[in-house]
Amino acid sequence: MSLFREIADRIEREIRNGKYKPGEKIPSIRRLASEFSCNKLTVHKAFELLKKRCLIDNVVGSGTYVRFPERIDEKGHLFDFRTSYISEDFFPYLKAKEIFSGLFDRDRGAALSSTPVEGDRRLIHVLGETYRLPADRILIVSGAQQGLDLTAKVFAARISDSILFEDPTYHGAISLFRAKHFVPMEDDGPELSTLDCKLNDQVRLFYTMPAVHNPTGVSYSRNKLEAVAERAERHPFYVIEDDFLSEFIEKPHPRFVDICPGRTIYIKSLTQTTVSGLRLGFMVVPGELYDKFVYTKYTSDLVCTGVLQKFLMEFIVRGDYESYIAETRERVAERQRRLLSIIEKQPELNVHLPQHGYNLWVHSNRPIDSPYVPWSKGEEFSFSPKYRSCFRLSFMNMDDDAFQRALAYLDSFFTSLFGD
Amino acid sequence: MSLFREIADRIEREIRNGKYKPGEKIPSIRRLASEFSCNKLTVHKAFELLKKRCLIDNVVGSGTYVRFPERIDEKGHLFDFRTSYISEDFFPYLKAKEIFSGLFDRDRGAALSSTPVEGDRRLIHVLGETYRLPADRILIVSGAQQGLDLTAKVFAARISDSILFEDPTYHGAISLFRAKHFVPMEDDGPELSTLDCKLNDQVRLFYTMPAVHNPTGVSYSRNKLEAVAERAERHPFYVIEDDFLSEFIEKPHPRFVDICPGRTIYIKSLTQTTVSGLRLGFMVVPGELYDKFVYTKYTSDLVCTGVLQKFLMEFIVRGDYESYIAETRERVAERQRRLLSIIEKQPELNVHLPQHGYNLWVHSNRPIDSPYVPWSKGEEFSFSPKYRSCFRLSFMNMDDDAFQRALAYLDSFFTSLFGD
Repeated sequence: MSLFREIADRIEREIRNGKYKPGEKIPSIRRLASEFSCNKLTVHKAFELLKKRCLIDNVVGSGTYVRFPERIDEKGHLFDFRTSYISEDFFPYLKAKEIFSGLFDRDRGAALSSTPVEGDRRLIHVLGETYRLPADRILIVSGAQQGLDLTAKVFAARISDSILFEDPTYHGAISLFRAKHFVPMEDDGPELSTLDCKLNDQVRLFYTMPAVHNPTGVSYSRNKLEAVAERAERHPFYVIEDDFLSEFIEKPHPRFVDICPGRTIYIKSLTQTTVSGLRLGFMVVPGELYDKFVYTKYTSDLVCTGVLQKFLMEFIVRGDYESYIAETRERVAERQRRLLSIIEKQPELNVHLPQHGYNLWVHSNRPIDSPYVPWSKGEEFSFSPKYRSCFRLSFMNMDDDAFQRALAYLDSFFTSLFGD
Repeated sequence: MSLFREIADRIEREIRNGKYKPGEKIPSIRRLASEFSCNKLTVHKAFELLKKRCLIDNVVGSGTYVRFPERIDEKGHLFDFRTSYISEDFFPYLKAKEIFSGLFDRDRGAALSSTPVEGDRRLIHVLGETYRLPADRILIVSGAQQGLDLTAKVFAARISDSILFEDPTYHGAISLFRAKHFVPMEDDGPELSTLDCKLNDQVRLFYTMPAVHNPTGVSYSRNKLEAVAERAERHPFYVIEDDFLSEFIEKPHPRFVDICPGRTIYIKSLTQTTVSGLRLGFMVVPGELYDKFVYTKYTSDLVCTGVLQKFLMEFIVRGDYESYIAETRERVAERQRRLLSIIEKQPELNVHLPQHGYNLWVHSNRPIDSPYVPWSKGEEFSFSPKYRSCFRLSFMNMDDDAFQRALAYLDSFFTSLFGD
């Protein structure tokens, strides 16, 4: 075995047997190189391997740390407040098995046939009915991130200067668009006076999450929604409405796609509402942009996988999607309650309620110095210093056992952080 | 029912009952508007609907024609020499059913869990072994088109001027990169003298299909491959090696990824070798570009669907992939023979052999004036006038019955085209 593998294996053993704990620093490359009498490049290669094994992470300017999430069992379930998905443990896999079998029984090989670029027609029809949206402007995509990517391509020219963002906002959008211009979020939507100031001639797009905003969990009031829609029509600009988790608020919640359909690029992730291994979503775009979006989808990756689209269609039509959402809604409410009870014990922490969905946005009165924490830090969602001591806890990507342990861990972590 | 739907439905009936045959012109918008006493916009909407139903197509400056491929049975099988896929009729769907069931039995919900951005580690390992490629530089993508799209993004700046193409070449690459600079293909690879002329300082990429080139079906000789590799190292530029259908030529065929791995971005579609409803592929990129490609994949659509990756992994490991390719190879050889026997009857047509894979590139001595033909025209693959009278016949996207009928149709179509 090569030396770098030996070094990696030894460090992995030491992490697993608890010599180095999650969040702790491991020795520097220099020190390990001298310990193993090898050159620094060899230790560097060992570190790269450990990173691939999800065991360590660099913190720039600080050193190398043992990672959260930590693997906690052989099934690979994660102790993880970072990942904003619903754990696959809750997905009705027996129903999934049944649906896949049924597809092959009924359609034989055709279950694996292609679909048009815009998506499987029956799925589009079913989504149109389920989400009360016009089927003739729906385009199936591989997820909300692809919806954003297609939008970036359709509005290619100097996009950083022509798009406004909420502050804070989804980090995948910040990276993709190289976001530069922000409008602060309040508890009922964006700060309108700042929005008005930023609406110069270059602005063509405003990226929003009006229903269960990511990361803050709040939703727009009807007033704010209408005020933004009115500006979209007048200015004009397109609203990119990322419907993150509207399934988890009371219906009917107002939507841009209903109020100003001609100015709205609506994006819906179906991965966020089902399970992380199923990459699917859809968009509704204004009529005059539809062909351009379809063409851009074609040059990006041709089409989405047919068999998954057929699966999802059945999952919805059988009523399984609806009952899964209903069950998940209860789990989310229960876990939010338990999480809040831990947080409320800490006088340094506070949470603006109501928040919906399966993330919780927490404000801390004290800055959090620990370089490595088991949650998503405020700075992932904003360049602004005022969110430095905020963080997002995603609480559905664990099974019940892991959640139980994660809660206990979080409780003690808060105490060690804030206890005097 | 709205009027435009009525008009669309009537035209559809007339197409289906043979009043308008594939390749024939249908009445103009103006004439139909006067016939139905409605405005032209209504007929336009009816035409849009018929296009969505894959029944008609516009030929710019000429009119609206009934489309090939024509649906020939209720299962939706197409009479189609255009689509370069293997018909789903040949895919072992019972094995697919068994594998999906097995995944849910073994992994329960975890069959639907997420994978790392770069792809499922076991699938990556298995692909590395199957294709004799370094697993640590493999990245799973949703197909060759996404591989090209990621490359376009990684090399973003002024890409049209910095990339050379074979002439003719894959139309998906022409559209995506807005291709401008071409090197003519000969029967054993690109014309080296032209390649040398075009290699100015701006050139950073050369897009090639050295094994079963699309559309010409030829493969590079070892000499040409080494000559291009030598230039890639010296200039230097990256070779984008699109391994289109190397499964259908004798192994081992020389590859850029083996000869000059540091200069090769290798792209492999797994949809082309399996079935069109399974969107998957992979890339191997030089070490110094790997992180950039992974990041770009992340901003494009996060990750590929986990359950499909797990399916494909099982399909390969059980030996099903290998036996499927072996069976398909025989079908391809048999169909190519039958197709050639029809073509050889036409003195106006000739085919440069050997060609591999399931497309056949045909040269015609006479220009083909018919505006609508059941194959892919030369001009889809090239801007050069010299390919205007060439065409590509894709012959695996039909079941055996449809192929039988399609052959008979093609025979009579050739006779009507060239018979005096």
